[in-house]
Amino acid sequence: MQGFQEDLYLDTPLSKHLYATYAKDMPIIDYHCHLVAQEIFENEEFEDLGQMWLAHDHYKWRAMRTFGIDEMYITGEASFEEKFYRFAEILPLLIGNPLYIWCALELKRYFGISEPLGADNAKEMYSRTKQMIRENHMTPQWCMETSNVELVCTTEDPTDDLLYHKKLLGKTKTKVLTAFRPDNAMFCERTGFAAYIQKLGSVSSLPVSTFRGLIDALENRLLYFKELGTTVSDDGIPDFTYVAADAKEVEDIYQKALGNQDLSKHEIDAYRTAFLLAMGRLYHRHGFVMQLHVGTYLDANTTRVAAIGQSTGFDCTDDATKVKSIGFLLDTLTSEGVLPKTILYPLDGTNIENYAVLAAGFCDGDAKAKVQLGAPWWFNDQVYGLERQFAAAGNLYPLSLSVGMLTDSRSFLSYPRHELYRRLLCRFLAQVVERGEYFSGESYLKRIIEDVCYRNVKEYFGF
Amino acid sequence: MQGFQEDLYLDTPLSKHLYATYAKDMPIIDYHCHLVAQEIFENEEFEDLGQMWLAHDHYKWRAMRTFGIDEMYITGEASFEEKFYRFAEILPLLIGNPLYIWCALELKRYFGISEPLGADNAKEMYSRTKQMIRENHMTPQWCMETSNVELVCTTEDPTDDLLYHKKLLGKTKTKVLTAFRPDNAMFCERTGFAAYIQKLGSVSSLPVSTFRGLIDALENRLLYFKELGTTVSDDGIPDFTYVAADAKEVEDIYQKALGNQDLSKHEIDAYRTAFLLAMGRLYHRHGFVMQLHVGTYLDANTTRVAAIGQSTGFDCTDDATKVKSIGFLLDTLTSEGVLPKTILYPLDGTNIENYAVLAAGFCDGDAKAKVQLGAPWWFNDQVYGLERQFAAAGNLYPLSLSVGMLTDSRSFLSYPRHELYRRLLCRFLAQVVERGEYFSGESYLKRIIEDVCYRNVKEYFGF
Amino acid sequence: MQGFQEDLYLDTPLSKHLYATYAKDMPIIDYHCHLVAQEIFENEEFEDLGQMWLAHDHYKWRAMRTFGIDEMYITGEASFEEKFYRFAEILPLLIGNPLYIWCALELKRYFGISEPLGADNAKEMYSRTKQMIRENHMTPQWCMETSNVELVCTTEDPTDDLLYHKKLLGKTKTKVLTAFRPDNAMFCERTGFAAYIQKLGSVSSLPVSTFRGLIDALENRLLYFKELGTTVSDDGIPDFTYVAADAKEVEDIYQKALGNQDLSKHEIDAYRTAFLLAMGRLYHRHGFVMQLHVGTYLDANTTRVAAIGQSTGFDCTDDATKVKSIGFLLDTLTSEGVLPKTILYPLDGTNIENYAVLAAGFCDGDAKAKVQLGAPWWFNDQVYGLERQFAAAGNLYPLSLSVGMLTDSRSFLSYPRHELYRRLLCRFLAQVVERGEYFSGESYLKRIIEDVCYRNVKEYFGF
Repeated sequence: MQGFQEDLYLDTPLSKHLYATYAKDMPIIDYHCHLVAQEIFENEEFEDLGQMWLAHDHYKWRAMRTFGIDEMYITGEASFEEKFYRFAEILPLLIGNPLYIWCALELKRYFGISEPLGADNAKEMYSRTKQMIRENHMTPQWCMETSNVELVCTTEDPTDDLLYHKKLLGKTKTKVLTAFRPDNAMFCERTGFAAYIQKLGSVSSLPVSTFRGLIDALENRLLYFKELGTTVSDDGIPDFTYVAADAKEVEDIYQKALGNQDLSKHEIDAYRTAFLLAMGRLYHRHGFVMQLHVGTYLDANTTRVAAIGQSTGFDCTDDATKVKSIGFLLDTLTSEGVLPKTILYPLDGTNIENYAVLAAGFCDGDAKAKVQLGAPWWFNDQVYGLERQFAAAGNLYPLSLSVGMLTDSRSFLSYPRHELYRRLLCRFLAQVVERGEYFSGESYLKRIIEDVCYRNVKEYFGF
Repeated sequence: MQGFQEDLYLDTPLSKHLYATYAKDMPIIDYHCHLVAQEIFENEEFEDLGQMWLAHDHYKWRAMRTFGIDEMYITGEASFEEKFYRFAEILPLLIGNPLYIWCALELKRYFGISEPLGADNAKEMYSRTKQMIRENHMTPQWCMETSNVELVCTTEDPTDDLLYHKKLLGKTKTKVLTAFRPDNAMFCERTGFAAYIQKLGSVSSLPVSTFRGLIDALENRLLYFKELGTTVSDDGIPDFTYVAADAKEVEDIYQKALGNQDLSKHEIDAYRTAFLLAMGRLYHRHGFVMQLHVGTYLDANTTRVAAIGQSTGFDCTDDATKVKSIGFLLDTLTSEGVLPKTILYPLDGTNIENYAVLAAGFCDGDAKAKVQLGAPWWFNDQVYGLERQFAAAGNLYPLSLSVGMLTDSRSFLSYPRHELYRRLLCRFLAQVVERGEYFSGESYLKRIIEDVCYRNVKEYFGF
Repeated sequence: MQGFQEDLYLDTPLSKHLYATYAKDMPIIDYHCHLVAQEIFENEEFEDLGQMWLAHDHYKWRAMRTFGIDEMYITGEASFEEKFYRFAEILPLLIGNPLYIWCALELKRYFGISEPLGADNAKEMYSRTKQMIRENHMTPQWCMETSNVELVCTTEDPTDDLLYHKKLLGKTKTKVLTAFRPDNAMFCERTGFAAYIQKLGSVSSLPVSTFRGLIDALENRLLYFKELGTTVSDDGIPDFTYVAADAKEVEDIYQKALGNQDLSKHEIDAYRTAFLLAMGRLYHRHGFVMQLHVGTYLDANTTRVAAIGQSTGFDCTDDATKVKSIGFLLDTLTSEGVLPKTILYPLDGTNIENYAVLAAGFCDGDAKAKVQLGAPWWFNDQVYGLERQFAAAGNLYPLSLSVGMLTDSRSFLSYPRHELYRRLLCRFLAQVVERGEYFSGESYLKRIIEDVCYRNVKEYFGF
C-alpha cells in the first residue's frame, strides 16, 4: 500500500501493453454530461478542492449522508474547506466504493498526489491543492484540456437559448455541444407542466394549444439545437408502460394536463408513449441519436428534495419498467420506418442483458449498431458495473461496436472515469486473450480498443 | 495468440486432469435441439461452410445485423459464399461473444483448423473447408458421428406425422427422437388458432370442438409421439400470469378463440393456465418430462418478422413473468398429485436464482431432481451464463443433479457447445476444490462429472 | 484434497494476515436467528449429530428432497441416526453448495474433524461424534460459548410472554435477547387472523376492536419486549405493493378481516401499508431498529406445507415487490419525521443493488447508516451471495458501515457462518488492496474489519 500505483487494474503484461499502447492517449469525447456551459465560458479559477469536489457532486453527498454527517457540511452553509475536511474523514472508509479510486485518480492526474487522503493529512492536502490551483490557474477549461478532452456534450432543456454554447463556439480547445432533453414536456402529470408548455410556446413562437402544436414547437427547438452542431438527444424514462392511444385520446390527455386536471396512470403512460414516439420521429427526421435513460426513481425522498432541491442525491433506481415497453416503442418506430439510431441505458444494472438482447433485435442494414446498449451509467459506473457490462452484455451485443464511456458528471474533474473505463476494457480484453478465447491478433485488438475509446462515438454521432 | 489452444479454459492441472480424464470422451445426449429430421435422413453433403454456418443460424444473423450488414448477405439472395465472406469480416470483431469461440471450436474439431478466420484469409479458408467437405463427405450424420452424439431430440408440433423420425428408426448411429411441443394450441390469441385446431382434430381424428376434446386430441398425439420412444416435452411460456378459471370459463374462452373473437389479457392468461395444467397432467400420466421455457419475447421486431419470418433473430427476452406464476402452476399440479418431472428454463438469465429456489421447493421422494433448473439456454449459453449458473444456482440446487447441456441449435456443427460446457464445468469444480471448499476426493468428482455430462440425462428421461 | 484446510478462501498473504489478526477472534453478535429460548435455557445435551443437524434445519431438508429421499428420512419418523446416514450419503454430492462447507466447518470447529464425511465413513463418524457429545457435554450453551458468541437475538411474536428470556437474564455467558416480530398482525387475509387479534387483546389487556386499538396493543407488547433489553424488530414483507389509504378505509378493512370476510388484493396491500407505517412509527418512538425482510414467497408448495408444516423448506423467493413500494414506505415515514433506523433485506439476491441505492437515499444526519442494506440472508448466505454483496452493493453503499453477518438459523451449530463471512470479507478487502484500488493503510483496514465484524452492530442496535 505505497499510494497510487500506475499499474492500477493492469495485472498482466498484455493488459499493461494494450492500455499503454492503444488506449491511454486517445482523446476523450464525453458525449453526455451535466456541466454548465456558463461555467465553462466564464472559466473562473476554482476556489479550492472543496469547491471542485463538493459544489455539485451528489455522489459524494450521498456517501456523506450514509455516515450521518450533518447536511450543513454537505449542501449547507459550511465553507467548502469545512466540507472538504468532513469528506476527507470518510474517504478512507470508502473501501470498495468508486469514490475512493475516483478521488485517488483525480488527486494524481490533476495534482500529482500519490498518497492517500484522510483525516490526518486533510489540512495539509487542502493547502497544498489550494496552492496548486493558484499556481496552475486551474479552471474548467484547464481541467478539460489537461484531460485531453476533444468534445463534451452538456444537456439542456428545449427552451434554453444556448447563449453560452453560442459564445463558446470555436473559442475553446474542447468543443462544447449540447444535447436536446425534452423531459419537461413529457412529465404531463407534474405541477408546472402547463406553465412549462406556455414557456415553450413563447420561446418557439408557435402555438402549443394542441399536442400536434407542442411537437411542432419541439421540432422548432430541435432545429435550433441542431444549428449549433449537436445530434444528441437525451430522454429520461422513469417507470414506463407502453400504452397505445389514438390522436384523439392523446389530445384529450394533453388538454387535461394543460388544465391541471388529475391524470390516471393509464393516461400518463399513454401520453408518455405518444410523446416518446413523436420524439423518435423527430430524431429520425433530423439525424439525431435517441438516447433512452430507463428506470430512474426520481425524487425518492420527497421531503429532502423539497428542502434541498432536485438532483441532490435523492434519486434512486427503479425496477418497474418492463423491457417489452421499450421494445414496443422501438417496434412501432420500426414499423413506421422512422427508428433513429438509439442507445438504451437501463439504470437498473442487473437488467443490461435483456436490453442488450433487445438492442440487437432492432438492428439492420441502416446503420452500424443502429440500436445499442449504452455505457454503464450513474450508479453502474464502477468496477463491478463495468466488468459486468463487458462480460455479460458483450456476449449478447458486440462490445467492439460500443460508443464507449461517458461521465454523466457535474464535475470538471471527472475525466479519469474514462481512464478507469479504458484500463478495465484493456484488462477485460487481455483476459479473454489469456483464457484462449480470442486469437485474431494484435492489429484487431488495436482496432477494437481505438474504436471503443474514440472512433465509434465520432462516427455514430457524426461529430 | 498462436491460434486455438487445447487448454482452452483449463488453467490449472486439476481442471486439465478432470476434463481429459472424465469429461472429454463422454458421449453426447442432446435432448433439445431444432434440427430437421428430414435433413438428417436425406443426409446430403453440405455445399460449403457458408451453408453450414449461415443457412439456419440466427445467432450469426443477429450479430451481422448489429454491424449494419445488408439483409441480402444475411438471409437474402446472396450466395452462401458471399455470406461467408461477410461473416468472416466481422468475426475478428466479436471478441467476448460466444460466436467467436464457437466458430473457433467448429473450425478445429471438424476441419482441424487452428488459425483465426478473418477478412484476410476468408477466401482461402472458404476453399480449404469446401475441399474438406468434399473429401470427407461431410453430411448431417457425419457431423453427429464425428461428435460422438449418442442421441438427439428434435422438437415437433403435435400435428407432425414424424415421417422422417420413423424412417430414421434404427438407421443411424445417433438415435433421433422428437419432443412434443404443443405451443400452437396454447396461443389462443393468434390468427390461425382456429385453423390450427381444426388441423389437430383432423390429424387425431378426434372432435376438438370443446377444450376437453382438444386435450384428448393432444393426448392422442402425445401417445403417437411416445410410440417413437420419446419422453420429452417442450413448452414455451412467454409473458405468463397464472389465472385460475373454472371449466366453464375456459370453455367460453376456447369458443371465443375458435370464433376469432378478441380476447382480453385476463382471458389469454386464464387459457394458458388451463392449457399448461392440462399438459402437465398428460405428461404425468404418460411419463413425460415437462420442460418449461419461460420468458421469451417472441417476434419483438414485428416488421422484420413479417418480412423474413419467425425465428430469424428477432426474438428477445422478457422480464415480465413472475416466479410465483410458475410456482402456482407447480403447486396446483402438486395438489392434484400429478406433477410430472419438470425442468425450468428461465430465458432471463438474471432470474436463475429464483427458479433454482422454486425448483427445490417442489422436489420430493417421487424422483431424483423431480423439479430442476435447466441448462443456461439460448442467450445464456456462453461463458458468463454458464459460470453464473454453476456458481449462483449451484448454491441453491445441487449442481450434481443437473441433466447437463443441450444445444437448442439449428446447426449440425454446434456440438462443441457441449465441449465448452464440459470444460467450464471441470474448471468450476477444480476451482471449488482449489479454494478448499471441497475435499471428498476424486472418485466423487469422477461420479459428478460423468453424471452431469451423461448419466443424469439418460436416467432422468429414461433414454 | 487433504481434508479441511485452515487457509480456506485466504489465498494471499494479505488476506491471511487480515483474517488472523483482526477478524478471527472478534466475538460474535448474532442479531437475528430462530433459536428457541426454552432450548437454550433447558440446555439439554444433544442426542447425536443427527439431531444437531437434522432436527430443525430446512436447508438440509430441501437438499435431501432434491435427491428424491423419502420424507420419512427427512422430517418423518426415522431416527436421527438413520437421517444422519441419509444426509451423509448426499453430502459429497453437494459440491458448490453452502451445506458442504458449513458441515465441514461444523465438523472441524466443534468436533475437530478434518476429513470428509460420506457414505463410507458415516457410521464411524456418527459414533465418534456421539461419543464427543457425551464427553464434552455438548449443549446449546456449550455451542454458543465455544463459538465466542457474545449475544444472540431470537425472534418472537408480540403475544409471547418471553418466559424463558426472563429466566435466561444474566444466567448465561451469551446474552439472549428477543426481537419483536409482529407479522401475524399484518397477515389480515389469513384464516386465524381474528383469533390471533383476540389473543393479542387478551395478552395486552387492551381493546383491539379498532385498528387504533390494535396498534396500541402492539405498542404495549413492544414495550414489554423492550423491558428485556431488545431494540430489534423483524418484519417480513412478502409481495408488497404500497397503497395509501385513509384511516377510515383502513378501519373498514380491519373490520372486514376481523369478520373473516374476503379481502381484495388492493385491500390487503392497503392494510399492509397502514400496518407497516404504524410499526415504523412505533419503532421510531421507542428506539427500535426496523428490519424489513422483503420478498419471501411463503408456503409455495401448499400441499407439503399442509402435511409437514410451515418453515420446513417450502418457502421460496419472490420477485414481485417493486423497490418503489419500499421507497414509498420510507418516504412517508421520513415526511412525518419518524423514520427509524432501518435495515433492508431483499430476499431476491439479484435485487441488492436497487436496495443499496434506495437505502442511501434515505440517510441523513440523524444517525450513521440510518437506512442500510442487510447482510446476504437465507438463500443468499453463501460464497457467491456474499461476494456479490461486497462487490456490487459496496459500490452503492459503504461496506464499512455494515452491521455485518447474522445466521438466521435454527441450529446451534451455525456460528461458523460468521467465520465464513469474515474470511470472505478479508479476502475481498485484500483483493481491493492488491488490485491497487485502496491504499489508506492497515490501521484503516483494522478499523473497517473490526467495525463490520463487531462494533457497528453493537453501536447501531445499542447492545
